Amino acid sequence: MTEKKKTTIVLLSGDYDKAMAAYIIANGAAAYDHEVTIFHTFWGLNALRKDESISVEKGFLEKMFAKMMPRGADNMGLSKMNFAGFGPKLIKKVMKKHNALPLPQLIEMAQEQDVKLIACTMTMDLLGLQEEELLDNIEYAGVAAYLAEAEDGNVNLFI
Amino acid sequence: MTEKKKTTIVLLSGDYDKAMAAYIIANGAAAYDHEVTIFHTFWGLNALRKDESISVEKGFLEKMFAKMMPRGADNMGLSKMNFAGFGPKLIKKVMKKHNALPLPQLIEMAQEQDVKLIACTMTMDLLGLQEEELLDNIEYAGVAAYLAEAEDGNVNLFI
Amino acid sequence: MTEKKKTTIVLLSGDYDKAMAAYIIANGAAAYDHEVTIFHTFWGLNALRKDESISVEKGFLEKMFAKMMPRGADNMGLSKMNFAGFGPKLIKKVMKKHNALPLPQLIEMAQEQDVKLIACTMTMDLLGLQEEELLDNIEYAGVAAYLAEAEDGNVNLFI
Repeated sequence: MTEKKKTTIVLLSGDYDKAMAAYIIANGAAAYDHEVTIFHTFWGLNALRKDESISVEKGFLEKMFAKMMPRGADNMGLSKMNFAGFGPKLIKKVMKKHNALPLPQLIEMAQEQDVKLIACTMTMDLLGLQEEELLDNIEYAGVAAYLAEAEDGNVNLFI
Repeated sequence: MTEKKKTTIVLLSGDYDKAMAAYIIANGAAAYDHEVTIFHTFWGLNALRKDESISVEKGFLEKMFAKMMPRGADNMGLSKMNFAGFGPKLIKKVMKKHNALPLPQLIEMAQEQDVKLIACTMTMDLLGLQEEELLDNIEYAGVAAYLAEAEDGNVNLFI
Repeated sequence: MTEKKKTTIVLLSGDYDKAMAAYIIANGAAAYDHEVTIFHTFWGLNALRKDESISVEKGFLEKMFAKMMPRGADNMGLSKMNFAGFGPKLIKKVMKKHNALPLPQLIEMAQEQDVKLIACTMTMDLLGLQEEELLDNIEYAGVAAYLAEAEDGNVNLFI
């Protein structure tokens, strides 16, 4: 029995286009029968936020961060040509026209394909994000869990 | 007979400095006798655009994107200290002083060293870019082609 | 005797959050007994600058770059929500509250764990940075040295 190939992605970016690239690669690798892990840290955590407002107890600084960061994949901006939020609208329009899957569906598809989605607990602490605010079926872990996967990875990317 | 080592780079960034890093690593790896692939997606496609205006039929949104994006490697901005285009001028000036190759020449050198340059067809569709607008001797493919190279890659980078 | 696993990181980014991610992964990998190399290029060199002003002979352009770039890890900005320098202050405040190590200490820890810190000599030239301006115990090398490490790397990242 041969071992499965492995793909790991660290997603630090909170940009719609970069998260899209991460999830397209992840879904492609899963379709190729790789074991796939996406480790979400810093602004990459925003892709995992639920889009409704969740009421949780937080300190003042954490409340500020939570307020200023986009709530969920559909609200993220572009890394280039964002134009105060106009860019993402444009991109989503052409995506629809060309039948490309929008980010929230790419994330759903990844979950259906058993891509392991990990939220970095250290940066959750820093940004004041709590488990109730993130999507269901997420794993919570630190850099050690990432490295344990990555050291046997065939494809390891930082996005 | 031993197999060649492999280097693959996904170039999503449209920044002059990051594209320069990608092509310097690619040329270095090719000189070390690696099989090298650069997969250009999203803004990374701009590095492959011809610098003259090519007249092709496009929809309105696609025309807008094409207009707003830099035409070719020499027109890209910096990821830091861009200063409305002044930064790239400065960098190119010091590059000339220190005999460092500018990006268009790095791309030429990569083609001479048989680095495989792939343009991501899915994001070409989204940004409304057509083959006539890109350099000659480019391959056109999707994420599956990238993964087929990367899963045997020794060095896989996302830039 | 089995060989040590290897982790290599190219740090091109000059953002506090991305450099923090690089050094957290590097320190984690070193703790897992990997041989770890961080290759600092372009704005990533700023993480290695001493925070005092060092007087060295430079050309005019090089002086300008040196002046405009942050002097050392503690003066770097965030990739998101920088708010003209207010963001990094906020992040450092929550880091202190949650006992997370700030970047300068992460760099110190990496040096204590024998993480090899390399400064890219080509981009030092371009940005006009000289050895006297960087931290002690740094190695100076080019892309060939990076590739020599990376081609045997288990985890290779570009940040």
